[in-house]
Amino acid sequence: MLNFQYFMPTRVIFGPETLNQLGDSPHLPRGKKAMIVVGESGIMIKLGYLARVQSLLSKQDVQSIVFDKIMPNPESDMIDEAAAICRENDIDFIIGLGGGSTIDSAKAIALMATNTGKYWDYMQSGTGGGEEPQSNALPIVAIPTTAGTGTEADPWTVITKSGSAEKIGWGNDSTFPTLSIVDPALMISVPPRQTAYTGMDAFFHAVEAYLATCRQPASDMLALEAVHLIAHTLPEAVANGENLEARTVMAWASSAAGLCESYSSCISQHSLEHALSAFHPDLPHGAGLVLISKAYFGFLASRGEERLGDLALAMGDTLQENLEEDIPGVAFLDALDKLIEEIGLGDEKLSDYGVTREEIPMLAENALTTMGALFDITPVTMSQEDVIAIFEAAYQ
Amino acid sequence: MLNFQYFMPTRVIFGPETLNQLGDSPHLPRGKKAMIVVGESGIMIKLGYLARVQSLLSKQDVQSIVFDKIMPNPESDMIDEAAAICRENDIDFIIGLGGGSTIDSAKAIALMATNTGKYWDYMQSGTGGGEEPQSNALPIVAIPTTAGTGTEADPWTVITKSGSAEKIGWGNDSTFPTLSIVDPALMISVPPRQTAYTGMDAFFHAVEAYLATCRQPASDMLALEAVHLIAHTLPEAVANGENLEARTVMAWASSAAGLCESYSSCISQHSLEHALSAFHPDLPHGAGLVLISKAYFGFLASRGEERLGDLALAMGDTLQENLEEDIPGVAFLDALDKLIEEIGLGDEKLSDYGVTREEIPMLAENALTTMGALFDITPVTMSQEDVIAIFEAAYQ
Repeated sequence: MLNFQYFMPTRVIFGPETLNQLGDSPHLPRGKKAMIVVGESGIMIKLGYLARVQSLLSKQDVQSIVFDKIMPNPESDMIDEAAAICRENDIDFIIGLGGGSTIDSAKAIALMATNTGKYWDYMQSGTGGGEEPQSNALPIVAIPTTAGTGTEADPWTVITKSGSAEKIGWGNDSTFPTLSIVDPALMISVPPRQTAYTGMDAFFHAVEAYLATCRQPASDMLALEAVHLIAHTLPEAVANGENLEARTVMAWASSAAGLCESYSSCISQHSLEHALSAFHPDLPHGAGLVLISKAYFGFLASRGEERLGDLALAMGDTLQENLEEDIPGVAFLDALDKLIEEIGLGDEKLSDYGVTREEIPMLAENALTTMGALFDITPVTMSQEDVIAIFEAAYQ
Repeated sequence: MLNFQYFMPTRVIFGPETLNQLGDSPHLPRGKKAMIVVGESGIMIKLGYLARVQSLLSKQDVQSIVFDKIMPNPESDMIDEAAAICRENDIDFIIGLGGGSTIDSAKAIALMATNTGKYWDYMQSGTGGGEEPQSNALPIVAIPTTAGTGTEADPWTVITKSGSAEKIGWGNDSTFPTLSIVDPALMISVPPRQTAYTGMDAFFHAVEAYLATCRQPASDMLALEAVHLIAHTLPEAVANGENLEARTVMAWASSAAGLCESYSSCISQHSLEHALSAFHPDLPHGAGLVLISKAYFGFLASRGEERLGDLALAMGDTLQENLEEDIPGVAFLDALDKLIEEIGLGDEKLSDYGVTREEIPMLAENALTTMGALFDITPVTMSQEDVIAIFEAAYQ
């Protein structure tokens, strides 16, 4: 019988030009000193977004300091360094401005600003210390500038332990952002390939949440909505990045898929990808997902996962023939293949990013060790041999 | 372009027998003294629900006092009386156990336990004092025992000013419940007619939220889900109240429709009904909605409201012929008529509850005065004459 928990306390303000509400919203966290977390690439400065956020905050008499050292696949030492700065400066709340790495870092910094020790002390798997935080995180404001991560609508932060290949997702009730401002106009400038990678991250959040055994009716609806919208809009967002309507649809699809991360969960595809990008930090998370997806969902299809048929229907109108075949997953695999081609990612290979066939057993062990919990909510049982076989198939 | 706010911070724990989680959930509000608010009928005692809640609370070392004077269409003096008891007893949080009147009262009591003056000082329309609360409400736990109100998933409380016919909805961020436990097993005992009334309240929450001009994608999905489930399940829940699966579907539909009240809003049908039941407190809210619905949505259909067609499709599979007629609303009106017959409410009349034709102009004025804001988000403009005409048509 239906049984679930529905909880996502973040206030999401959505729409083009809603960033301006940062200047007068009564929903900004209390306090007069904020840390703004941005990536080390300097892109938030070049685009003028950082100056705009600083200016809007000043309208609310909020002073800000900037922490601008976040790299893709952010590492735990950097979190601890930023948290120390927060404590020294009596920071009241943290703003993450950028993509998933930046906002995830903002969440982790917010946690460590109020807790002792090091970030990795609080990780619950791998070599994590398994401690429970004594204090809630500082309030978090998320301002995503890409459509993909969904972190604006979930509590999760994904951080890699410095000097290691452990990339682990973590979160608690206090790492839900207090306020998320999702302004698609900020996403216009994302280049085509990054648009494709991040869009596919959102796509797989929705796909996985639809398949997870901890799903609920609300996550099912949001997942099918996101899958439908991404399949029909991502090619346009990639081809014509200045199309604000396409960016707006993709932004909502990404937030909807983020909601799925709160109401349901990712499954083990994300465990496999975290292993890949932990060992190969230059591999974008979305690219890693795309590169293992056909092998991963092929495995699920071969085990008869029938809900793949629903996802195929959400992706297109003309799949009825495929759905009548014996394996419902075939229609989904065909639609996935078509989408990956349409967004220009059909020619990528794992070896492009330095992945070797020899490391596959190690990748499989890493996936099962660092993010093993996601295997428990995957609808199909997977042994270590199965995970190796999926990586092998993805490597072809 | 898409523009909305998504915010519903309540944790909803859903499923048969989830009431037991009250005894060990870490999500109970802090504090050791709770007020349990129940209706004056004594039904919560007779069914053993009150004793069960008290016993579960004691497992968490929470002492409770009971306020058992809540009547259908609860009045403001009672709120003020209960709030004074909270202050005298240093109550930490409020539990509403029962139907919409009870949980709404719990919300209003929670607000007045921390604020000075009288409840009506804070109402923003009618003869309300227009003041802003100085403090947040005490934390609220909602335990609905009917499927209809949706108040477990929204901030709203509907209270009538004592000695008057002003029935006004109000709420703020602090009147969202902190925790709602929606246990369909508690709803088995609701008699058929009350099942029908409350189920139709949920139905119209969803229908109105789908039509409101402040709708958003998430409310559209949840509304169509609730409309679909109610149209297909309410007749069974009325006919066989002990069918736990039907009760579970209705409970989720009711909460989904409540979520619609948070992400979107009711429209002016609720203003018209509040006028009716403010003057005739014996008229159940759901019955009032049913009795004006055909006239109300007939008016919207006559003005060409096309989204009524979507609602008709959600209600059944065989309406394509109707949808091809010139007026898309006709299919919805037919499906509504069928549903009302199926749940045994086809023979009710407004005059059964003492409504007279002579009071219609007064009812129209009351609807526009006390709940006028809902007319602004109704997709069709309505003059006072239009409202009178709708009441006249409903009175036939």
